[in-house]
Amino acid sequence: MGRPRRPLLDRERITTTALQLIDEQGDFSVPRIARRLGAQTGSVYHRVDGRDGIVELLRERVASAIDVTTLDLRPWDTALEAWARSCRAAFAARPRTIPLLMTSPVRAPRVLEQYERAVALLRDAGFGADEVMPLLVALENPVLGSALDLAAPESMGELAQDTPTPLLAEALAAVGEGRADRAFEVGLTGFLDHARAMRAARA
Amino acid sequence: MGRPRRPLLDRERITTTALQLIDEQGDFSVPRIARRLGAQTGSVYHRVDGRDGIVELLRERVASAIDVTTLDLRPWDTALEAWARSCRAAFAARPRTIPLLMTSPVRAPRVLEQYERAVALLRDAGFGADEVMPLLVALENPVLGSALDLAAPESMGELAQDTPTPLLAEALAAVGEGRADRAFEVGLTGFLDHARAMRAARA
Repeated sequence: MGRPRRPLLDRERITTTALQLIDEQGDFSVPRIARRLGAQTGSVYHRVDGRDGIVELLRERVASAIDVTTLDLRPWDTALEAWARSCRAAFAARPRTIPLLMTSPVRAPRVLEQYERAVALLRDAGFGADEVMPLLVALENPVLGSALDLAAPESMGELAQDTPTPLLAEALAAVGEGRADRAFEVGLTGFLDHARAMRAARA
Repeated sequence: MGRPRRPLLDRERITTTALQLIDEQGDFSVPRIARRLGAQTGSVYHRVDGRDGIVELLRERVASAIDVTTLDLRPWDTALEAWARSCRAAFAARPRTIPLLMTSPVRAPRVLEQYERAVALLRDAGFGADEVMPLLVALENPVLGSALDLAAPESMGELAQDTPTPLLAEALAAVGEGRADRAFEVGLTGFLDHARAMRAARA
């Protein structure tokens, strides 16, 4: 009788409100979530595992947009490439969560399970246990960097008239729109070639 | 007589206060800067070019820690590698500024000049005007991603006991400390090899 009537819905509303605050202000706090929901701060704490618990709910929400079935594709490099593209799209939809999510330890079970599958993919492909995390993080870094880049205005520099940067202006004009996508392709190709070379060197 | 007595110092104090707010809260606002400095909001606006002006002051402050002389090294790939390492260190010291800086157009003259020198380096090395921005952004993405990664706790997952992720646990144990550095090396090597291959294909 004393239990909240809609606990699952409440955790979803807490997560959604935290996302709104992050989009607007770059961060959230439990008191600000409570104020926006017209609730007591203690009631919010009652439903989640503290601030860290809300970060994990955010992580699960953002990661839920990643197509995990990409990790079932074969060969391994096709899977890794498709997973990277899906991760980039998921994070690009929520760029301001990236620093929060990257700077706290992963505890969300569904996200840990996704890493487990990615590790299994690379171990099955023949990579050593010590090579797997450097590879996954080396893929994650440009994925997240590019997700932030996608949120940037297309024209990087406004090139103030009093700044003599003719080569930069030429380079920006030459690439035109889609700079973020082309840069991501360059980075992804470099990563995948290097991973294939590492695997070949082992074999 | 009506001019502020220490305008340069004031812009520095505004920048420093904005950095403090970002470190603490993930973002800044002009009224919050004013409150912390014990000043009127209008007085802060009087000294800077609005919120965007403060973002550019932040960009110059963070970029001032980058060793630009790296771009004078030769050959070109040695220069690019040293510049990337210096950029990573500069941004790793201020990870929470990254989303703010990446999602607004670059206007700060000294930062545009740094890009101009990087573009010149790549054009001198023989890259086409259309290849330069994709390459520079493809380098910037993992640099910034890795700067965020450096701010993360060393042990990525706490691996809750009820989550069956034995392969992930093994991979984390195998890499031990320095995961962020090893991942950055993998990514940087892949990028530089790919850039060298692109250049060779042109020649």
